[in-house]
Amino acid sequence: MFSFELLAKEEKARAGRLVTPHGSIETPSFVAVGTQATVKSVSVEDLCEIGSQVIIANCYHLHLQPGEDLVEKMGGLHRFMGWQRPLMTDSGGFQIFSLGAGKEHGVGKVASIFPEEKDRGGHLSSRKGKTLAKVDEDGVEFVSYLDGSRHRFTPERVIQIERKLGADIILVLDECTSPLHGYDYTRKAMERTHRWALRALEAFRRMSDKRQALFGIVQGGAYQDLRQESATFIAEQVFDGYAIGGSLGSSKEDMHRVLEWTIPLLPQHRPRHLLGIGEIEDIFQVVRRGLDLFDCVAPTRMARTGTVFVREAKRFRINILNAQFKDDPLPIDEGCKCHTCCNYSRAYLRHLFMAKEPLAIRLATIHNLHFLESLMARIRAAIKEGRLGELEREWLC
Amino acid sequence: MFSFELLAKEEKARAGRLVTPHGSIETPSFVAVGTQATVKSVSVEDLCEIGSQVIIANCYHLHLQPGEDLVEKMGGLHRFMGWQRPLMTDSGGFQIFSLGAGKEHGVGKVASIFPEEKDRGGHLSSRKGKTLAKVDEDGVEFVSYLDGSRHRFTPERVIQIERKLGADIILVLDECTSPLHGYDYTRKAMERTHRWALRALEAFRRMSDKRQALFGIVQGGAYQDLRQESATFIAEQVFDGYAIGGSLGSSKEDMHRVLEWTIPLLPQHRPRHLLGIGEIEDIFQVVRRGLDLFDCVAPTRMARTGTVFVREAKRFRINILNAQFKDDPLPIDEGCKCHTCCNYSRAYLRHLFMAKEPLAIRLATIHNLHFLESLMARIRAAIKEGRLGELEREWLC
Repeated sequence: MFSFELLAKEEKARAGRLVTPHGSIETPSFVAVGTQATVKSVSVEDLCEIGSQVIIANCYHLHLQPGEDLVEKMGGLHRFMGWQRPLMTDSGGFQIFSLGAGKEHGVGKVASIFPEEKDRGGHLSSRKGKTLAKVDEDGVEFVSYLDGSRHRFTPERVIQIERKLGADIILVLDECTSPLHGYDYTRKAMERTHRWALRALEAFRRMSDKRQALFGIVQGGAYQDLRQESATFIAEQVFDGYAIGGSLGSSKEDMHRVLEWTIPLLPQHRPRHLLGIGEIEDIFQVVRRGLDLFDCVAPTRMARTGTVFVREAKRFRINILNAQFKDDPLPIDEGCKCHTCCNYSRAYLRHLFMAKEPLAIRLATIHNLHFLESLMARIRAAIKEGRLGELEREWLC
Repeated sequence: MFSFELLAKEEKARAGRLVTPHGSIETPSFVAVGTQATVKSVSVEDLCEIGSQVIIANCYHLHLQPGEDLVEKMGGLHRFMGWQRPLMTDSGGFQIFSLGAGKEHGVGKVASIFPEEKDRGGHLSSRKGKTLAKVDEDGVEFVSYLDGSRHRFTPERVIQIERKLGADIILVLDECTSPLHGYDYTRKAMERTHRWALRALEAFRRMSDKRQALFGIVQGGAYQDLRQESATFIAEQVFDGYAIGGSLGSSKEDMHRVLEWTIPLLPQHRPRHLLGIGEIEDIFQVVRRGLDLFDCVAPTRMARTGTVFVREAKRFRINILNAQFKDDPLPIDEGCKCHTCCNYSRAYLRHLFMAKEPLAIRLATIHNLHFLESLMARIRAAIKEGRLGELEREWLC
């Protein structure tokens, strides 16, 4: 049911094909974030038109609402949300973090971007400083942000929940440390994450119907020896793929270092996923270091504030609310073939944002997702033709 | 460029065809409310799929934001919003009312439904009791709800703005009285509305390029003699169509009475429009009395709160948030062929509402609009086959 084939390489960058029971994913691929069984503001039909290959939903969120039993009763996540292509579920490790220590420290995966991480479910509305989750050897206990009810996740329970949800690719429960945790705690959490990984694998073997693949998660914060130890340990376990999770430090340079310590230790013949990071500028960095999948809230998150991707703009973005676009008859991006760019002007999109019309966010989201998918298609083609470096220079210079 | 043909009659009910420069409207027809140059939460593509024939935007709102000059510069409203089918613009008379006397009285078109009238631009967020608009013989002065700037509408100015917006069918400026206004004020406002109608006609004749049709508006509140006097006066003027505006009393029975006093006095060979009222239960009432067009916020307004139309339910509606739909695998309405019903279950739609996902409102809006358009198509067919009475009994019994 699952296979991962490498089709081409250019230095460390790889073009591949990940086959799942719901079709294949051409890699490197962007994974659209659909936390609550929907990608914010767009429909499944929109996503098909955009060319999205795979969505990542969230085990933690779906457990709390509407509950895995209901999703199972409705025929599983694919059927429930009407998406027939590949699906992933993240375990909720990041949520443990954002409700627990991350809340105490007021920081997230990369310290500076946490305030924008709402898509992935960092419930920032909760009181900062109040611990809403408590980790122990067995698992983690947390309080529902919806109704204050108490819940416990263990590695086994998460596998069981993800089994009921029925995504093609599921992730183990990990403990996601904050960039402000010191070395000692980060090591302790990493070692616990490794023990949890073994328990998850065991539970997965017991429960699997072979219709799901399990990805392990490398932790270790921004510490070189911990990342290397974690990558080595997780790589030794027979997972179907390997994700890089947790704190990636407090700058893009830190993130690049973490990737450089980690990726060479992961198996060549298995897909590699970067959890929850990536903007247009990061994509080449991440692909060039040999990642195959990455999920990314940037396109949907930015769209909600009117920030839309443009090839010829600083950091590949403009904010459509700027007065300069008031009477601009052009599409957002002249080279873009998305539904929004084919049908609407910058002036109209700006009007919709100014008038607080819900259509604004959908049209901006469609554009941003399409822009990113279209860049990924070019990147895959470039790797196959050995001209990724050239494409990167075209885009970044 | 314009014509109105009566194709069939069943007692007072009429099936017709209203031809405009942007295509024809089969009547009786629902007019989707697109106040700010967009029907809330749906795209033009959604509306085409739904089968919407005509949209009514609002001169008052578009004057304030983004301004008629911008819309004109962008090629007019059709091109600006990407809608190539017929368009109407309401003058803003209702807004004068909701910002002025309506605000003082805390009531609207039909007293009881005012709190739900937000779609049509009754800016309820403004302080109740504070007059934001002042009417005099020349026109009306009002304060922008956006930035507090002062504006003046006169009958001539409204024609000029609507000319720049470029909808196919435009409405004259009227003064819309409150159900709580007494006889004397209602008469005074009606007489002023008549003088404004003549001024609007004159301005329209001067400015028209024959690509727009002008509808007059009958006023007179819930007073029989005033309604009859107003209908007689407005009917004598050579408008392309006739709208019934203003207060329709404080109950559905009042509304029916107003229609019965008014409609027989309007020309047979011209289209008749009811401004801003209509729920599923009202549609048969309104059609049976000989109306051809009516705009209606119900489908979009209700959709936003999870109220969706169902053939086999009390008052033709259910609220999808009810716990009973939690695990309901059926579509909203089993007989419905809309995008939402073809693709999603009640359980999923409820989940989207519970999770406050924006897609919820779009899917509910698509359903409600489609449900209504589909009923209108049946009503038109029934009139042509002389079985409207039978269809009404099927639906209402």
